Amino acid sequence: MKFAIDGMGGDNAPKEIIEGVYKALEDFSDLEIVLYGDEEKMKPFLKQHNRLEVIHCTEVIEGTDEPVRSVRRKKDASMVRAAQAVADGEVEACVSAGNTGALMAAGLFIVRRIDGIDRPALSTTLPTLDDAGFDMLDLGANADAKPENLVQYAIMGSIYAQQVRGVKNPTVGLLNIGTEDKKGNDLTKHAFDLLKEAPINFIGNVEARELLNHAADVVVTDGFTGNMVLKTIEGSVGALFSLLKEGFMSSTKTKVAAVLMKPSLKTIKNKMDYKEYGGAVLFGLKAPVIKAHGSSDAQGFYSAIRQARKMVKHNVCATIDSTISKEN
Amino acid sequence: MKFAIDGMGGDNAPKEIIEGVYKALEDFSDLEIVLYGDEEKMKPFLKQHNRLEVIHCTEVIEGTDEPVRSVRRKKDASMVRAAQAVADGEVEACVSAGNTGALMAAGLFIVRRIDGIDRPALSTTLPTLDDAGFDMLDLGANADAKPENLVQYAIMGSIYAQQVRGVKNPTVGLLNIGTEDKKGNDLTKHAFDLLKEAPINFIGNVEARELLNHAADVVVTDGFTGNMVLKTIEGSVGALFSLLKEGFMSSTKTKVAAVLMKPSLKTIKNKMDYKEYGGAVLFGLKAPVIKAHGSSDAQGFYSAIRQARKMVKHNVCATIDSTISKEN
Repeated sequence: MKFAIDGMGGDNAPKEIIEGVYKALEDFSDLEIVLYGDEEKMKPFLKQHNRLEVIHCTEVIEGTDEPVRSVRRKKDASMVRAAQAVADGEVEACVSAGNTGALMAAGLFIVRRIDGIDRPALSTTLPTLDDAGFDMLDLGANADAKPENLVQYAIMGSIYAQQVRGVKNPTVGLLNIGTEDKKGNDLTKHAFDLLKEAPINFIGNVEARELLNHAADVVVTDGFTGNMVLKTIEGSVGALFSLLKEGFMSSTKTKVAAVLMKPSLKTIKNKMDYKEYGGAVLFGLKAPVIKAHGSSDAQGFYSAIRQARKMVKHNVCATIDSTISKEN
Repeated sequence: MKFAIDGMGGDNAPKEIIEGVYKALEDFSDLEIVLYGDEEKMKPFLKQHNRLEVIHCTEVIEGTDEPVRSVRRKKDASMVRAAQAVADGEVEACVSAGNTGALMAAGLFIVRRIDGIDRPALSTTLPTLDDAGFDMLDLGANADAKPENLVQYAIMGSIYAQQVRGVKNPTVGLLNIGTEDKKGNDLTKHAFDLLKEAPINFIGNVEARELLNHAADVVVTDGFTGNMVLKTIEGSVGALFSLLKEGFMSSTKTKVAAVLMKPSLKTIKNKMDYKEYGGAVLFGLKAPVIKAHGSSDAQGFYSAIRQARKMVKHNVCATIDSTISKEN
């Protein structure tokens, strides 16, 4: 199995990226890596490895670059070269912690969509209180969606949940403003009817309030709403942790409480931190394109590589391809 | 000032509703109340008061009733009678803790819209870390919205923030998936351009992640997204409190921490509890229609009455009327 890695993407590149790569090479003996990036900058962290190839690139896509334009113009950027390696069949997947929009553009224009997929979708596994987690998509690959897109999202999410996360017959919920069948906006009302007929285990509408209570294994929504919900969870959890910190620091008594609660708080924080679950996947492309979190450390980036490996091993893209072509 | 109160709505009716009414009558000497409900059920909690009139109703709208149908059919329901009293000019506002959808229908069909308002919007004041709070609308009165609706929401929210909450020149943000001007879906992109021209202090796009950090004094969005964000905040805060509870109960040490942190946790819980800020307002109607939370106790219902009083006192509906007619 051979992967292309963008060595220059993310806040902690190239150091943590390269450390994550070595960790993956160590754990997975079937893995070969082609690392793209500025050789001068990567050199301090590189050591010889017989399953690692390093390819020098003269450009980098920055976090602030305009996604589509930068992918089109910076032909020698590490991210673009990594995506190109996938398109050329040199590798089976690519992983980057760089600019999310640019990676989506690179996926769309270079790796390309599976035939029959209208819109790719960005997805990640989010935490639930029972630790099972759920896959939500689309998280913002497309701000607007048609009902038919949501059906494709549901199929792709189901295949992923089943083959990568090992969920048997994953339940699929439609994110909506109420659980009753007739609830929703124009999009969800139409999508509901289509989802009932789709080859998935559709359980109907699920409410945002119940997401973290494991309302479904896969939750589908348009990219605008998905992005909104994801950021609202992040914002709410962040706000509550600020308040807690303030509370714990407010007096001698509460400072004692903080010491006593420290391990427990750490557990809670990790539990709510969805970055621990791996990277975000851009579904609907011909090969796995994984977006590791921008703030990934070596462990986080390693998780994203492991995730790509599982996707390749379990033929996720091929299964999506055959299922979608059967549907169309 | 004379208000109609639905004595039968909410989980704690009629007891807590009536106690809230008496509390309001005590605090506001300019207030008269007409209380609608089942006299038999209300009797145990009623005492003579010269500014309280009780009107017996034979019907009640239940929480499970289909909103539009129940409002149309149950002509003698306490909620319908209260709304009718507003429409007939007998009272200046109405307050109910009952079925939200039914109250919206009663507002729309009985109290009726201000001329020029296309869609009413449901709004509530949500908490921020700095305690200032922000008004978000629409929270679900209309699942679908046009860009023009969002402009009206912005105008109504601004007037409310200014006149009821005393915010000078309130900032208005458009809830969006990024802060850049060109971000968003079709709706927000169009709304952005219109909001720039509206008679409000528009500060551009705001992200869901920053809402609790007081991103703006007024945040406008379509009812689907607003409802989603509101429920995501509720769900996230609820989930985190469950985890905390579990953490605090996990060992003798953490149980000690729980005792030490109790007052601080109570403060945090209250801070995040938006019910403390009063009820939800259905904006765009000819008179204030306030939805107190379904689980309101006497204090909560009292707050909703106080909120209606402020709206009447500061001529919120008349100001909306004149501003909208100037715009059209």
